Amino acid sequence: MCELLGMSANVPTDICFSFTGLIQRGGNTGPHKDGWGITFYEGKGFRTFKDPQPSCDSKIAELVQNYPIKSRAVVSHIRQANRGQVNLENTHPFTRELWGRYWTFAHNGQLTDYQKLNTGHFRPVGETDSELSFCWLLQKLEQRFPEPPQDMEAMFAYVAECCDELRELGVYNMLLSDGEYVMTYCTNHLYWITRKAPFGKATLLDEDVTINFQEETTPNDVVSVVATQPLTGNETWHRMKPGEYNLFHFGERVGGNVDELADVAFAEAKPKSQAPTEPL
Amino acid sequence: MCELLGMSANVPTDICFSFTGLIQRGGNTGPHKDGWGITFYEGKGFRTFKDPQPSCDSKIAELVQNYPIKSRAVVSHIRQANRGQVNLENTHPFTRELWGRYWTFAHNGQLTDYQKLNTGHFRPVGETDSELSFCWLLQKLEQRFPEPPQDMEAMFAYVAECCDELRELGVYNMLLSDGEYVMTYCTNHLYWITRKAPFGKATLLDEDVTINFQEETTPNDVVSVVATQPLTGNETWHRMKPGEYNLFHFGERVGGNVDELADVAFAEAKPKSQAPTEPL
Repeated sequence: MCELLGMSANVPTDICFSFTGLIQRGGNTGPHKDGWGITFYEGKGFRTFKDPQPSCDSKIAELVQNYPIKSRAVVSHIRQANRGQVNLENTHPFTRELWGRYWTFAHNGQLTDYQKLNTGHFRPVGETDSELSFCWLLQKLEQRFPEPPQDMEAMFAYVAECCDELRELGVYNMLLSDGEYVMTYCTNHLYWITRKAPFGKATLLDEDVTINFQEETTPNDVVSVVATQPLTGNETWHRMKPGEYNLFHFGERVGGNVDELADVAFAEAKPKSQAPTEPL
Repeated sequence: MCELLGMSANVPTDICFSFTGLIQRGGNTGPHKDGWGITFYEGKGFRTFKDPQPSCDSKIAELVQNYPIKSRAVVSHIRQANRGQVNLENTHPFTRELWGRYWTFAHNGQLTDYQKLNTGHFRPVGETDSELSFCWLLQKLEQRFPEPPQDMEAMFAYVAECCDELRELGVYNMLLSDGEYVMTYCTNHLYWITRKAPFGKATLLDEDVTINFQEETTPNDVVSVVATQPLTGNETWHRMKPGEYNLFHFGERVGGNVDELADVAFAEAKPKSQAPTEPL
């Protein structure tokens, strides 16, 4: 198992707060010691930081935590290896170009019989089921849409259909982004939250850090976060169901296959530090 | 114009010394203020650091300079924009997958009439002639070698033939690597040097730094460096001629279209600090 973290925002936003919680799980509060990676989009470009070392000991993770890179779309992953060695080519996220855009992908789970998937000219470089499934998704997309699709929401609905096929091979939780959209598909563990005005305070579950979003934001900011487990103990995260997908566009949820408000689950874990005075 | 820096080594080697010289040219001793990037291979994987900011002011460049990432193949670039805006998607190096390997590319120069080049399914994301020419090269390679080529040296000779075509469109100095090989093609400004035992001292031209390679190496180390301009003032760099290419494999020059020793040029510039006591 691994942990996923994604962000979609309407203004360039740093992910230092959530990333601080996530990297503790990379060998400290969690067992995900086999590397980590994070991709930040800036316009159509991106920058990726990754390390096959545990995130809690990584100098590069320290840089990412302390240097507030602002982005409207982020995909991050910490890894507990099951398929493929612990090395850089097997470290998520993976990025490939399709339709003149960079697509970034991270996966949590494990597949069986995945070697049979035909990836066409998108050849995997490493040995993970994750990268191979990403190549297969891209190949399916290029076959269905030889030219850049106009209706992106329909395109993502097709991605979800392909993920349904992959879910028959095992556990498939994933994040996918092109820098504008962030999509997430669930097999078992995925939560999401949208933060917007009126902003409150939030407290990390994994480290003794509280943030007052009101001080960090403007009233028009909209930020959605997707994570394998809720990162904060005093906010309401939506728990995703098996086969559910959600699509975010610059912060707002714009698509998916369930009613947005039908399945709100409160995070059950308690924060380590005191409860905020102004809960969301 | 931009500046290129490449390295090929037989053991994982850090590039801190050469990179320290290069980044001074990014807005300090040189005019290349429109971003910089560096790609380090580790096995088949890679990590890229890039910034559209001048390298001499970049926090990420500071990390790269102080944190000795060791690699056997490095491609780096500092940019003075001519085609395409100053943003992340136009910042070199560019990396794409072909034959299940990651290929990394950086270019110095400027092309005209490049829009007519057919890039097939390798679509550029940014607006530079550089990225478009890289996509065209990959498309030519995939057409010529639908399956991964066995004879890599013949493959690189074909890359050089394609570069001859590009040179008819303007100035085309470039670096290309798959993590095992580093190839360089010259139109006007490119130099290379191979350092091996007995190692001596070297002094940067752009900053007052001297290194004694003997203290940093073992007798079996072989490291080749390629740069737009010599980075050190007291070593012998090979000056490349128009249309010349050189191919390095884990430090050693293994191919090219000129006699290795036919065209040795001494770097004319003088080091800022005192001459080393033990020149190569």
